[in-house]
Parts: sequence; C-alpha cells; structure tokens
Amino acid sequence: MSAADRSPFAPAAFPTLPAVGGLRMAAVAAGIRYRGRDDLLLVELAEGTAAAGVFTRSQTAASPVLWCRKALASGRARGLVVNAGNANAFTGRDGDAASAQTAAAAAALLGCPADQVFVSSTGVIGEPLPMAPLLAGLPVAAAAAGSASWERAARAIATTDTFPKGAGATCQIDGVDVAIGGIAKGAGMIAPDMATMLVYLFTDAAIAPEALQALLTEGANRSFNCITVDSDTSTNDTVLLFATGAAGHPPVADPADPRIAGFRVALDAVMLDLAHQVVKDGEGISKFITITVTGANDDRAARSIALTIANSPLVKTAIAGEDANWGRIVMAVGKAGERIDRDRLAIAIGGIPVALHGAPVAGYDETPVAAHMKGLEVGIAVDVGVGEGRATVWTCDLTHGYIDINASYRS
Amino acid sequence: MSAADRSPFAPAAFPTLPAVGGLRMAAVAAGIRYRGRDDLLLVELAEGTAAAGVFTRSQTAASPVLWCRKALASGRARGLVVNAGNANAFTGRDGDAASAQTAAAAAALLGCPADQVFVSSTGVIGEPLPMAPLLAGLPVAAAAAGSASWERAARAIATTDTFPKGAGATCQIDGVDVAIGGIAKGAGMIAPDMATMLVYLFTDAAIAPEALQALLTEGANRSFNCITVDSDTSTNDTVLLFATGAAGHPPVADPADPRIAGFRVALDAVMLDLAHQVVKDGEGISKFITITVTGANDDRAARSIALTIANSPLVKTAIAGEDANWGRIVMAVGKAGERIDRDRLAIAIGGIPVALHGAPVAGYDETPVAAHMKGLEVGIAVDVGVGEGRATVWTCDLTHGYIDINASYRS
Repeated sequence: MSAADRSPFAPAAFPTLPAVGGLRMAAVAAGIRYRGRDDLLLVELAEGTAAAGVFTRSQTAASPVLWCRKALASGRARGLVVNAGNANAFTGRDGDAASAQTAAAAAALLGCPADQVFVSSTGVIGEPLPMAPLLAGLPVAAAAAGSASWERAARAIATTDTFPKGAGATCQIDGVDVAIGGIAKGAGMIAPDMATMLVYLFTDAAIAPEALQALLTEGANRSFNCITVDSDTSTNDTVLLFATGAAGHPPVADPADPRIAGFRVALDAVMLDLAHQVVKDGEGISKFITITVTGANDDRAARSIALTIANSPLVKTAIAGEDANWGRIVMAVGKAGERIDRDRLAIAIGGIPVALHGAPVAGYDETPVAAHMKGLEVGIAVDVGVGEGRATVWTCDLTHGYIDINASYRS
Repeated sequence: MSAADRSPFAPAAFPTLPAVGGLRMAAVAAGIRYRGRDDLLLVELAEGTAAAGVFTRSQTAASPVLWCRKALASGRARGLVVNAGNANAFTGRDGDAASAQTAAAAAALLGCPADQVFVSSTGVIGEPLPMAPLLAGLPVAAAAAGSASWERAARAIATTDTFPKGAGATCQIDGVDVAIGGIAKGAGMIAPDMATMLVYLFTDAAIAPEALQALLTEGANRSFNCITVDSDTSTNDTVLLFATGAAGHPPVADPADPRIAGFRVALDAVMLDLAHQVVKDGEGISKFITITVTGANDDRAARSIALTIANSPLVKTAIAGEDANWGRIVMAVGKAGERIDRDRLAIAIGGIPVALHGAPVAGYDETPVAAHMKGLEVGIAVDVGVGEGRATVWTCDLTHGYIDINASYRS
C-alpha cells in the first residue's frame, strides 16, 4: 500500500478495535502470488460459533462464494481461510475442488468438519489457485494462532486497497460486555484483479444462527447494499458474521429480542463504518457522496432511484467537476424508472434547495452550493413526491484517476 | 462543430440522401439560445402523412416528449418543429404550455390541427423555452419551406454533436421507387445540456399508422434500443417516422405484408446506420464496440446481458486501455443477473476464442487478440450456454476524453 496512491479519505491510522473472545487469528506470507507480504489469513473460532453470511448475487460467482453458501447451511463455523492474490474465480470445477481442499486442510488442522470452515479468495481471476503454497501456509498459520492483530489481518486480505480497513464497537447484552470487530477489503481494482469486497465481522455475543442471519441481512441491506463505486459487481463479494458466544451471556434466539437492541445498533454502526471505508477507497475518488431519496413509492424504489443517481456517469463526473448540475440528477431520477411526481420533485445539494415543485428554485443563488461542491463530502437529497419510501446510498465521483487505474494495460 | 473535437469516427462528408416526396424542410437561425447558427427546423408534411414514434422511458420525460406522445394518438402528422439550445425539460406546466404553443403556432402556419404538429427540443434544461424568438422564427421558416437540404436540417438540430448525422436508402413497393431519409443528433453532452438523441425518419411510402408504428417499434428495438454511450437516459430521446405516401403505390396496412419486406430491410438499415453514428459521436470515444450475446434464455435476456457488458465502466476502460481483459467481461455477464451456465460460458474477442467451457482457452496466445484491441473497432462475443436468445449492442469505450467533457464546470 504505497503512500503515493493513498486515498484522500484514508484515516491517519488503523483504528483501535476491541478484543473479541472466542477467536484467534494468524496471518502468513504464503507466497501464493504476492511476495514479501502476508497473503493468507486463518481465523480459529471457538466451538459453538454461529455464522451468517451475505454474498454477491453475480451469476458468475466464484468458487469460494459457492462453497460458503453451502457451508452456511449448518449455521456453525470453526474456521475462516482468506487468501489474497488469486480470486479462484472462473476456474470451473477445478476451482470448486480447490475451495473444498482448502477447507478440508484447515478443518484437519482445527479439528472440525470441513463444512464449518469458510473460505474466501481475492485477486487475479481465471488462473488456478496455487494450492501448494496455500496448503503449506496453513499449518504455519495454525501454529501461530492468536498472533495476528486486527490490522495485520486486514492487511493480509487486501489487494489493491490503499489503506487497511477495520471498525469495532462495544455494547452490552444482559449487562455483559460484548465486543464487535470487523475487517474489510475493497474497492480498488487494477486489472486483472476483481474489485472484490470482503468483510469479516466477529463478535463474542451468543446469538443463534437464524437470528444472526436476520441481523446481518437487515444490516447489510442498509450498508453494504447501499454503496457503489462504479456499479460493477464482483464475482467474489462476501460478508460473513461470526458470533463466538464467548461473552458468556444467555444465548439469544430471536432477532427482535429487546436484549439485543443495543447490539443491533452497534453492529449496524460497524457495518456502515466499513461500508463507507470501502467507498472511500474507490479508484480515483476525490469526493465522498451521500445521496438520500425520500417520498418514493416504498424503500425499495427509493434505493433504486438513489443507486441510479449514484451510478450515473454524468452525475459522478459533474460532482468531480464540482458542478452543482441538478439537471443530471433529474435525468438520473427519470432513468430509474420508478414512479415519481414530476411536478413535486425537489432537490437539495448540501442541504440547500435547488429545485422545488418540479422546477428550479426561484432566484436560485448558486454561491453556497458551489462552495459545498468544493468540499470533500457532497450531499444530495431528492424527494420524488409520491409516498413514504426512503433510502440513503453512498458513492464516489468519477475522475481521471479512475481512468488511469482501470484503462492501464495489464502487463 | 469544431474540427478539433471531431470524433475519430466522423465521416469525411455528410452522406447523399435520396429526395423524399411529400415533405419540405426549412431551417432558421432564430436565436433561441445559440447565435450565428441555425437552431430551428420546420418540416411540412403532405396531407395524409402517417406518423409513428418511440420515446424515452424516463420518468422525468420533457414536455415536448409528453406532447408528442399525445399527438401520436391520431397517427397523422402535418408538421414537425425542432429547436436546439433549450430542451424545455424540467420546466413543469409552463413547459407543457410552451410545447403546445409551439405546435399551435406551426399549425396556424401550416393550416392543420395543432395535434398533427410534432415538437422536439434539445439543449439546456430547467430554463424556460424562449418563446419570443421561437415564435418569430416559425413564419420565417414557413416562408422558406423546401429550402433546407438534409445536411442543413441535421445541423439545425445538433447541440454537442461533432458531426451532422444522416442516412438514407431506396427500395421498391409494388414496383414503385420509394425513398427513406433520416437525420439524427446525439450523443455528445456538455453540462448542462442533455445527451439527447433525436431521430427523424421520412419516407414517401404509403403505410398506415398502425403498420408504421409496428415497423418503427421493431426496428428501434434492434437499433436505437441496442446502443448506449454511458447508460444515462436523456429526458428528451425521441424517434419519429413519417410516411407521406407521395410515392404513389397502393397503401399498405399490414406490417407483415410481403410487399414491404424490402422496405422493412431498408428502414432497418437506415435506423441502424443512424444508431451507430450516435454511438460514434459518444464523448471521448476511441473505440467503437460491438457486443454479441448468444445462448441466452431469450432475446430479452441476451440484450440485458449485452447492455450490462456495454455499460460496465470496468469493461469500457479496459477496452480504452486496449486490454483484452475477459475477466471483466465475465464479471459483467454475472452482474446482469440473467440465467447462465458458468461451465459453458464462452468468450471471443475479435473472433478469437479467449474462454471456452467456463475457463480460459488452453494455451491462450494473446498476440492476435492484442492486435485486435489496437484497432478502432472492437468485437466481443459471449455465449452463455442456456438457450437460443441472442442480441447485439453497440457502445463506445470510457476514456479521459469523457471525463474532460463531463467533469468541466459549466460556466
């Protein structure tokens, strides 16, 4: 991660995350593709750990994603293996076998069933996963279990990130202290790597798998499913949540249990923090953009409209040019195809109304809006006037930096 | 249209179009917004002219589009008014009134009902249409009816085009010579103008409105609906087809009538030619890209996959970088969300297989593919292995030129 390419939004230092009981992490430089850096993460999870996951909806999802979907059936986890440098994507049945072999090897070291080992890969696609160095690295990692810090783990899974990503929180369940820690990688992409987003959340809370899945799915719907860098969808996107139970409070089986109301808030905050960090490492980013849509038919429609605005090259380039071009926002609202009331459309930029009742604000003074557009963070609010649906999404602008990174010949 | 910005795909000269009986065109410099160039086109159409149209599906469609949709109800046309410089978009009910007033004024000059006058506008959005110069220009145009060439008409409707767009063909119906001529504008965009695509097709064939609409809708589905520059959808996109009947053959009422089989082929060719020209004027274009998808569930799914590839920023930048990055193509295929068979996925670039049976071609030699990628025209073929659906779409790459044009502050 060279300082020269570092995102303007990179934090000054990796944050301090709380310790989470019931897990031990180790990272090794297995030499799978990268040389001279950690590229293999092994996480041991305590017996009884519950697991939940959400994955890319890509129809060309990579082998490790297919493996994780199957492993999730039991709702239990004893291990996680993540390798960086090779995505094991578009590798066909051989790739499926490689994920299975990885899980089996880790399972043998951890003393658990193979289907309780989760596997992720990120890096080049279409090349076979080099199994020799990977399998040689696993026992080295197992022997070093517990030696990796959160930051070391985050660095081990990174590919084109310009900064390692972590977030954490503490809360209480039944008066017992509970910790949440998460690491993520994404969204930089240099061909032929994929802009994979990988997120691993760990907690020592004791929550049953079905309830954990509900918390994760709902929280992901408001965070990871509300971000976009360039609309492209990786074949490998993975979010996994592991609850070890080591905190020791009585287990919770119902996602609506008021005992975990505070936990839900803390978990959502950690997910949102990581989601924002992924956007903030978007290729070529110069502006972090928040888009809120209200007044839509329902929340789904609101998100659809918000993502259409967030993914519009014309909106993104206007923002890169610090141009409060609400006309392009109107265009994107129309493009989404959702029901709207043209004569009630309202747009505000940086909290300043630019359009009301379907027309430009009378006596519109662009000065405060132009000042807002010069900042690092840009806020756009749109009301479409037909209902109560609302959604907020986050994205980055589209700049020469994006073209520099993505239009470069691979070799 | 400055030579410096001219698309690398601009033709050496405006093509020669056949004369089409039953219409008279005039262009004037009304000074609606531009100074020193034609900005108003008036086309008089013979009594009995049939009309057909397809429009943007944008939910924020501009007033002139709303007017045209209503005017189409009669299937008849006596006039067309197009102004460049102001799109009369996001102008609310005042904008609706302006379109109606334009049509009424032209109707008075042409001696026809207002709802047989079609109206289009292109240019800045959110600003009221300057009616005084527009209304002053109409009688000047009416007095000059028949004086404008196809090229003059194409130039009068252009905004950010770097070259005027025209195409034509001749054929026979019942042994009678029939001509088709078409002009188009789009897709350059410099804020705050919209990347509006306007297309006007004229023929002296005698075809009833319902049949004409069927021909247009089906042909547009294989041409204008199969192109994309940057996925953004203008609020003003309009394609109109007028059949004056002046050729004199017995009228045709059935779109499947074998008498017009040749006409259909000629019309489709004109539409495709214009559609390609619109792509070839895409901002910053350096490569003209053809994407063919086969083996999909049905044609709709094939087109959805093809457009997802065509709209992927990562695919478009790879092509700009002359990088045969099939991994990004796989990603885009998966992103589309349509049913595919991962283990039967096949990809060819420039006709050269790069992936077969869901994996890279054994012994892949990149040399001929790299050579193909250096050309002006790039071809990508994808088979997804689940059915008989097929589609072809056309697009351009994503370059620094696009960012230059679209990230520039408006003033």
